[in-house]
Amino acid sequence: MQNKMKAVIMTAPNQYGVELVDIPKPAPGEVLVKIMSVAICGSDPPLLAGESYQTPTLPFTPGHEFSGIVEALGDGVTDLKVGDRIAGESHCGCGYCYNCKSGSYNLCLNFGKLDKGHRHYGFTTNGCYAQYNSYNIKTLHKIPDNLSYDEAALCDPAGTSFNAVTLTGVTAGGYSLTIGDGPIGILTMQFARSMGSKTIMVGCGNRLAMSKKLGADYTIDFTKTADIPGAVMEITDGLGADEVFECSGAPGTTTQAIQSVRRGGQVALVGMSSITEMMVPVRSVILDQIHIHGVRANPNVTKNVISLFADGKVNAAGVITHRFPLDDIKQAVELFVNNKDEAMKVIIHPWD
Amino acid sequence: MQNKMKAVIMTAPNQYGVELVDIPKPAPGEVLVKIMSVAICGSDPPLLAGESYQTPTLPFTPGHEFSGIVEALGDGVTDLKVGDRIAGESHCGCGYCYNCKSGSYNLCLNFGKLDKGHRHYGFTTNGCYAQYNSYNIKTLHKIPDNLSYDEAALCDPAGTSFNAVTLTGVTAGGYSLTIGDGPIGILTMQFARSMGSKTIMVGCGNRLAMSKKLGADYTIDFTKTADIPGAVMEITDGLGADEVFECSGAPGTTTQAIQSVRRGGQVALVGMSSITEMMVPVRSVILDQIHIHGVRANPNVTKNVISLFADGKVNAAGVITHRFPLDDIKQAVELFVNNKDEAMKVIIHPWD
Amino acid sequence: MQNKMKAVIMTAPNQYGVELVDIPKPAPGEVLVKIMSVAICGSDPPLLAGESYQTPTLPFTPGHEFSGIVEALGDGVTDLKVGDRIAGESHCGCGYCYNCKSGSYNLCLNFGKLDKGHRHYGFTTNGCYAQYNSYNIKTLHKIPDNLSYDEAALCDPAGTSFNAVTLTGVTAGGYSLTIGDGPIGILTMQFARSMGSKTIMVGCGNRLAMSKKLGADYTIDFTKTADIPGAVMEITDGLGADEVFECSGAPGTTTQAIQSVRRGGQVALVGMSSITEMMVPVRSVILDQIHIHGVRANPNVTKNVISLFADGKVNAAGVITHRFPLDDIKQAVELFVNNKDEAMKVIIHPWD
Amino acid sequence: MQNKMKAVIMTAPNQYGVELVDIPKPAPGEVLVKIMSVAICGSDPPLLAGESYQTPTLPFTPGHEFSGIVEALGDGVTDLKVGDRIAGESHCGCGYCYNCKSGSYNLCLNFGKLDKGHRHYGFTTNGCYAQYNSYNIKTLHKIPDNLSYDEAALCDPAGTSFNAVTLTGVTAGGYSLTIGDGPIGILTMQFARSMGSKTIMVGCGNRLAMSKKLGADYTIDFTKTADIPGAVMEITDGLGADEVFECSGAPGTTTQAIQSVRRGGQVALVGMSSITEMMVPVRSVILDQIHIHGVRANPNVTKNVISLFADGKVNAAGVITHRFPLDDIKQAVELFVNNKDEAMKVIIHPWD
Repeated sequence: MQNKMKAVIMTAPNQYGVELVDIPKPAPGEVLVKIMSVAICGSDPPLLAGESYQTPTLPFTPGHEFSGIVEALGDGVTDLKVGDRIAGESHCGCGYCYNCKSGSYNLCLNFGKLDKGHRHYGFTTNGCYAQYNSYNIKTLHKIPDNLSYDEAALCDPAGTSFNAVTLTGVTAGGYSLTIGDGPIGILTMQFARSMGSKTIMVGCGNRLAMSKKLGADYTIDFTKTADIPGAVMEITDGLGADEVFECSGAPGTTTQAIQSVRRGGQVALVGMSSITEMMVPVRSVILDQIHIHGVRANPNVTKNVISLFADGKVNAAGVITHRFPLDDIKQAVELFVNNKDEAMKVIIHPWD
Repeated sequence: MQNKMKAVIMTAPNQYGVELVDIPKPAPGEVLVKIMSVAICGSDPPLLAGESYQTPTLPFTPGHEFSGIVEALGDGVTDLKVGDRIAGESHCGCGYCYNCKSGSYNLCLNFGKLDKGHRHYGFTTNGCYAQYNSYNIKTLHKIPDNLSYDEAALCDPAGTSFNAVTLTGVTAGGYSLTIGDGPIGILTMQFARSMGSKTIMVGCGNRLAMSKKLGADYTIDFTKTADIPGAVMEITDGLGADEVFECSGAPGTTTQAIQSVRRGGQVALVGMSSITEMMVPVRSVILDQIHIHGVRANPNVTKNVISLFADGKVNAAGVITHRFPLDDIKQAVELFVNNKDEAMKVIIHPWD
Repeated sequence: MQNKMKAVIMTAPNQYGVELVDIPKPAPGEVLVKIMSVAICGSDPPLLAGESYQTPTLPFTPGHEFSGIVEALGDGVTDLKVGDRIAGESHCGCGYCYNCKSGSYNLCLNFGKLDKGHRHYGFTTNGCYAQYNSYNIKTLHKIPDNLSYDEAALCDPAGTSFNAVTLTGVTAGGYSLTIGDGPIGILTMQFARSMGSKTIMVGCGNRLAMSKKLGADYTIDFTKTADIPGAVMEITDGLGADEVFECSGAPGTTTQAIQSVRRGGQVALVGMSSITEMMVPVRSVILDQIHIHGVRANPNVTKNVISLFADGKVNAAGVITHRFPLDDIKQAVELFVNNKDEAMKVIIHPWD
Repeated sequence: MQNKMKAVIMTAPNQYGVELVDIPKPAPGEVLVKIMSVAICGSDPPLLAGESYQTPTLPFTPGHEFSGIVEALGDGVTDLKVGDRIAGESHCGCGYCYNCKSGSYNLCLNFGKLDKGHRHYGFTTNGCYAQYNSYNIKTLHKIPDNLSYDEAALCDPAGTSFNAVTLTGVTAGGYSLTIGDGPIGILTMQFARSMGSKTIMVGCGNRLAMSKKLGADYTIDFTKTADIPGAVMEITDGLGADEVFECSGAPGTTTQAIQSVRRGGQVALVGMSSITEMMVPVRSVILDQIHIHGVRANPNVTKNVISLFADGKVNAAGVITHRFPLDDIKQAVELFVNNKDEAMKVIIHPWD
């Protein structure tokens, strides 16, 4: 094995490119992963632009949705071996704070503190826009042979979707509404469907068509529908959806979510945007006793996601539209940011 | 028994007074209750002013927080007998819709439809500002001898508090924060305390003093504290409260609630005001994975409330400051609305 | 409409036959239902033999799994109309006890007390082995046109299965184990599957073959497998099933259930037999922190069952093997009891 | 600091005594703890006798209920400092298996595997019957000044009680029943009480008297009561207890627990004995839809326990009856095992 690798290096806001750098060594409890496939997350471009809610120490390598092969073992690692095919998740808790110990390592109380063992790969420490990276084994999961690297790279974002359906629960035989037909929205809709829900998707254009193809039982084109909650009420016999997943982050959709859910129903806020505050119809929340759950990332779900992907119950490949070599990172990001060429999930192949 | 009774009759917004009217007869499944004590709810004055979110058909008798004595039985009633001392709750579901059958009769899908059996006493049908009223037995609960009628009249509002602590859960050995030191706030704080929580109360003046006397472990005077969430963080070792109860309905307090809760914590929205929409820091809700629960009324809790009152674990009498005969209803309402004379819970005695 | 109907009348243990009797009139809140399809439940033959845990007052008409058409309305009924196609459930709570009000009408505290409004149709009051019967509207649910009467007759037993999966929860992407391949077992397996579980079924012979056809991902033939838990561990990578549904009621299977579930997993006891007590490995329950749920009937689930049936996510028709006219009731019961001719669910048609 | 310490060394079943041995060095992520107080657990004597369900590698130092002072820090420890007063818990998960990551480190899938980081102090690795021991910081919690070392030594067993009340939930204003008035039973009763429950205790003699003194609202002397469930029904208006905690491990009490709980209620199995199997009335479990939870140890609860101890809501000191120096370990164990001199919780002081 050579000791240099290609990696995207960000040196300042909007300044980044592929460089040759040292391959990181796995610390105790870590393994070195040969990155086979990377997906661009909606949070990556703001980070590259210096507009993220989290600012890494520069120079920096972003990226946190990936799959790969175990290349070398750090001290004390016995559960993975060289050659294992794996998918990763971005959050690595300190392991000893109250939240980590009780299962919410996505809410680690030592978030961002590298000296206490916390890692948010691709945010607070280097990520996967590279040919190699070292990861704590807590964040890695073996994948079955029938799951491609490209599909496996979606385990991290799909885990956010799975966390959403876990926090709300899903009513088998009921209706769920997903607002926002980006990759997270379409994956969330599919997970709800895999748990027995009749699915309603709000979106438009080619993405709404993709939603339909990937399992949305009902679609609502928001460019043609003045009254989204009214349309939901019509589908649901006037009762509203049992669960609503807000996956767009757009202003106004949180209100639509609350107006579209049934009395006593569950709303998940998944989509995050540049907006930090929104008007929310709190009186309706009270009078209809609605439950709202913020959804952050993907704790304890990767195993389930891998299983549903591998069994074909959720179609990950279906949201992938483009693939680029690492050297074309800027072109890939530009296409992704501008939704060019009907881009949905854009994949980077570090070894192409 | 005579066949006329005194009752408050509202004939138009802001037009009401005590009149002699027929005593209502109990229908099958109902009993006639001799009303012994009535508490004025914060939602009564807006209703009398024609500014409620619910508009009753006039003429109308308001009131829904009460206790009394069973005076006569409707057909088919075998579980109550004449002379039983009872406390009431205001919501009576249709009994056969999905929400009623599954325990959420406060969210009855036939809300407001009298022909389908739903009653919201004091809102959609006559209430307890009277010497008698008939009630479906679903809404009545026997009270022990050591519970006074005045205390028992608080079972309905206290039930909203109990629903709040039920929806959030209460962390025994943890911290809860209550924002708003009106009767509902102080009762909510007491229930949280009875379930093992260390309680923090935000308020001011005599009400905050009352909170302290009734069990608040920590008090924050909002007139003297610029940074409420900061003060909460100081008390809670920088972690935030496990549960936050927003009981004021004031603009801005929902944001305070969200900023004061721990990562992954629970927020209950209890206080309702004339405000229908509020700015909410949704990004924080997502990043800290916060759970928000609208709280409507008091399903399935009156039994528990009675028990905690009777055992002295929650002090209902402590929030009662004034008592008036029914004839002085206007004076009582005026004192209550304007918080005159340090008024908290104001009681009406129909038989004084 | 004529005023006489055919009905099965039981006059003593093991003494029953079809007779002409008066058509019952619907009381207020009830409707008269023309029974179109009846399924024989495993609890019907013991009841006819006088060996049930519940003893009805004789003469008596059993049966509680049915579908039909609304024929006439009792007073006050506005939500159903003559001609509506409906499916029924057997439990009708009093509607005002603590359990009913909080959603557990299957556990009504006034169970068996007719004067308090409780009905357990086909157990404590006449059932559906007849051409007509009157039912409280709380127990009836409209069915869509694409659901046949025979399928709809299975809503009641399928509701027990749905209650089981509700009480345990189902891990999407995980494994569930169902022990017992009778109709309830196969329906339970299908519901778990519809909620994203990989399903393992323990059974034998034609029933196990039927399980496979209806969606069991793995089958274990207990006649050929000495170590059932060992076989489950092999399938589940040594971890055990996330949820185990004991649907056989056989001695020993509860121990198998506990030995086959993962550490911290969920076990539902669904199958009831003549056995009232069993040896249970309590030390394992403690050391592996296992959760065991008794499952009684089908509260608040019929709507969901109808939806999953109608959408083809759960195949009800697949477990139906035989159909008889009402006049052949004895032949039908005998075939059912003795599992003759590979009988699974046996249907009675009162109007054939 | 010297480099030798006193420790109890077990060399064979029933062969143990105090010896001078090397003080263990803290590994990375560990600290060395000066043990100030140790409580004898009911599981210690069987372990010393070689009759435990877990067999340690000999020679071995038992003990897992302790408090102490941080004496030295291993590499990478920043959250504790020398001189900190701490309480410990016995389970230390591997930190990366599915159960650990999702909060159930008491059910670690790598249980007993030292090479994977799991520790069950005092069971699979040396414990606290010594003047010093090294512990992973995951298992240690700072204690406030007003909590004595003796009280703090009870955090570990009390955590099992707290886990029990967490798994069942506690109905504020309802009734809980605790069967078994040993230290775990009395602590469980107190926790239920701190969460608003009216408490019923089954026991006898001085322990039942102690229960009463420490907060049991009702006591049932099993030596004088033929029908325990009947006595519970009398106290609870014929409904049964909302939660039942089986803390005795005696044959027959599991059946009493199930017969004493309300329809739809919760039963926790806490008490473990030499019995591995018991007869359980499964039919009642099904017909009354009862939920049974095995309770193992104390995940994620020590913080809450410390808080309730320190605030005086649960009286830990009240169950302590005897104190011995480490040199008298045999005398202490003998007194404890034989319940001599009304012994309840027996404390060892390694430095006396």
